Amino acid sequence: MKARKAVEEIDPYVPGRSKEEIAQEFGVKKEDIIKLGSNENPWGPSPKALEAIKEELNNINRYPESDVELLKKEFARYSNVKPENIIIGGDGADEILDTLAKTFIEKGDEFIVPLPSYMYYEFLFKPYGAIPNYAKWNLETNTLDLDSVLDAINEKTKMLFLCSPNNPTGALITQDEFRPILEKTNKSRGGVCDAIVVIDEAYVEYAEGTNVNLLEEYDNIFIIRTMSKVMGLAGMRIGYGISSPEIIEYMHRIKPVFSLTKLSYVAALATIRDTEYIEESIKKGIESREYLYNEINKMKSVKVFKSYSNFMLIDIHNTGYTAAELTREFMKRGMIVRDCTSFKGIDEYYFRISICTLEEDKKFIEAMKDILNE
Amino acid sequence: MKARKAVEEIDPYVPGRSKEEIAQEFGVKKEDIIKLGSNENPWGPSPKALEAIKEELNNINRYPESDVELLKKEFARYSNVKPENIIIGGDGADEILDTLAKTFIEKGDEFIVPLPSYMYYEFLFKPYGAIPNYAKWNLETNTLDLDSVLDAINEKTKMLFLCSPNNPTGALITQDEFRPILEKTNKSRGGVCDAIVVIDEAYVEYAEGTNVNLLEEYDNIFIIRTMSKVMGLAGMRIGYGISSPEIIEYMHRIKPVFSLTKLSYVAALATIRDTEYIEESIKKGIESREYLYNEINKMKSVKVFKSYSNFMLIDIHNTGYTAAELTREFMKRGMIVRDCTSFKGIDEYYFRISICTLEEDKKFIEAMKDILNE
Repeated sequence: MKARKAVEEIDPYVPGRSKEEIAQEFGVKKEDIIKLGSNENPWGPSPKALEAIKEELNNINRYPESDVELLKKEFARYSNVKPENIIIGGDGADEILDTLAKTFIEKGDEFIVPLPSYMYYEFLFKPYGAIPNYAKWNLETNTLDLDSVLDAINEKTKMLFLCSPNNPTGALITQDEFRPILEKTNKSRGGVCDAIVVIDEAYVEYAEGTNVNLLEEYDNIFIIRTMSKVMGLAGMRIGYGISSPEIIEYMHRIKPVFSLTKLSYVAALATIRDTEYIEESIKKGIESREYLYNEINKMKSVKVFKSYSNFMLIDIHNTGYTAAELTREFMKRGMIVRDCTSFKGIDEYYFRISICTLEEDKKFIEAMKDILNE
Repeated sequence: MKARKAVEEIDPYVPGRSKEEIAQEFGVKKEDIIKLGSNENPWGPSPKALEAIKEELNNINRYPESDVELLKKEFARYSNVKPENIIIGGDGADEILDTLAKTFIEKGDEFIVPLPSYMYYEFLFKPYGAIPNYAKWNLETNTLDLDSVLDAINEKTKMLFLCSPNNPTGALITQDEFRPILEKTNKSRGGVCDAIVVIDEAYVEYAEGTNVNLLEEYDNIFIIRTMSKVMGLAGMRIGYGISSPEIIEYMHRIKPVFSLTKLSYVAALATIRDTEYIEESIKKGIESREYLYNEINKMKSVKVFKSYSNFMLIDIHNTGYTAAELTREFMKRGMIVRDCTSFKGIDEYYFRISICTLEEDKKFIEAMKDILNE
């Protein structure tokens, strides 16, 4: 039985290693492992989410309601849009991206992504026969190489992925940069194609300035949000998209109907209403980021990238280590950091860390100094 | 922005109505509503699943492990196959079906489904450009119309959906029926095409005789299972597929990586190990089914279909009601039953009920007698 050609050409996904494996291989205790690899909220979920889950526990033998209007209203309120601008995903933002592909991608369509950026866009879009057309992120200035994006746009372009703050570089894309891209991908404004500009705001709470306001001017924008970061619900897989009612309606036609679990639904609802938890998570996240940045910035052998997110990229060309080697050194010390070698558009001398609690941050800084003799 | 043609032609999915809506419209208490519409396990989840969830609660800010080997091993043990025969879905069996489509369907491929059967196959496959080729279920004898399936198979056939026990008719397809279908869809056995025969065993525990043994003889079989029925976890969205390692490996290349929530994972693991809970659920389910069948079989104005599942189909041609009208009568009395009008291959005079607790069964039978003057 042969798979489709687009699938045959894809390599199996190699998952990250589990805490269990690392604990076993390096002889560290599982409960002592510090996770700096996945950009999660290290302070745990909202207590109100946990309460809501406990109250719903006895109903998990029942299907989720397919009607998630209440949650849509809350996301709309939080994002300052209308419920008809919202679509909710039950496998986090990943399901939203997959539904975007399924709704709009014909075999041979091109998508543009400036490298380095989040690699999962490609993993999701290639099976639909979409072809990547890479643009560039300028690592020297840590800004989008706008010309490379504009040059990549052509009549085959169907989707663009612009992550702001960008993963893994941490910097923002400005609205002055978004505008010419939005114009060139909109035929009614003289553009060369009709394409959807996906703005991934997974980390937007740690920065200032969402791009939701651009929805009033452009109908070819699609904003991605997630509850896996500041909202502390990575394990529950909740994401949402914000776009024009036309695009949202098309996507609803084919979106999985029951993909949001019953417990994810109540956890999401409780968390998005818990303003205090959200504000506190942002505040502590930014504190942790500033602490880590300042400490790493003092080190002579590395260069740390200024971040507007809950993670930061570190250039280790001058340390004598590759990222794979350095990652291994951290694992020996019970710390999981992100080797960025698998990101396209970046060489094997970068790694990424996430914010942690201040106590964990300090342990990490000590370990880093120890490894690098700083 | 235009969607793909296959998407434009699909009507928006019309979700079932929520308990809240029904409670409001018909003035019944939400907590008194009896659900006979969704083929769930009415006795609730395994207590061990609830314990496992409670223990994992504080970790839901962390991503799920992408490595679900332990759960694969348990499903393999339970199903009497090897872990490499198993793929796990994080949106129940729906995700498995979607991944099957994404892996194998090229625009214009045909899929065969005998009507009436589960309508979601079509909902999932049409967006990939697959074309339905309908075969027949014989409602008189409540058996598969084997010839209609064999006649439908041609060189464009890529997938067949055979639900056993069949939803909504409740009867089984025998291995004497599966074999000629498996032969005709396998070129190496002189068939006219290479197609995958999907055997949907969502309800297999309520019958006897899985078709897993056929995997040893045929490499073009794909068996679907779910934890939404006897396993009592419909709200947690867990399903799995059983097939040849070759098919499973292709699917793993593109399957969503984190779609199973952290709580779904621990609940699944605890439940599949809870043999006592599973056996008890089957036993009580069959008791409820036999009670309902016998009581309804006494009524003169309806015909009830013998079922090997946890639901049964009821023919109401002689009652003077359409299924929509009858469903409304039940709603007034706080009971949700399944109007089968939206199933293709069946007219507007059938409805389906699920097993409930004996107490609920009795209330339902009383209501049915009351409505039909039996």
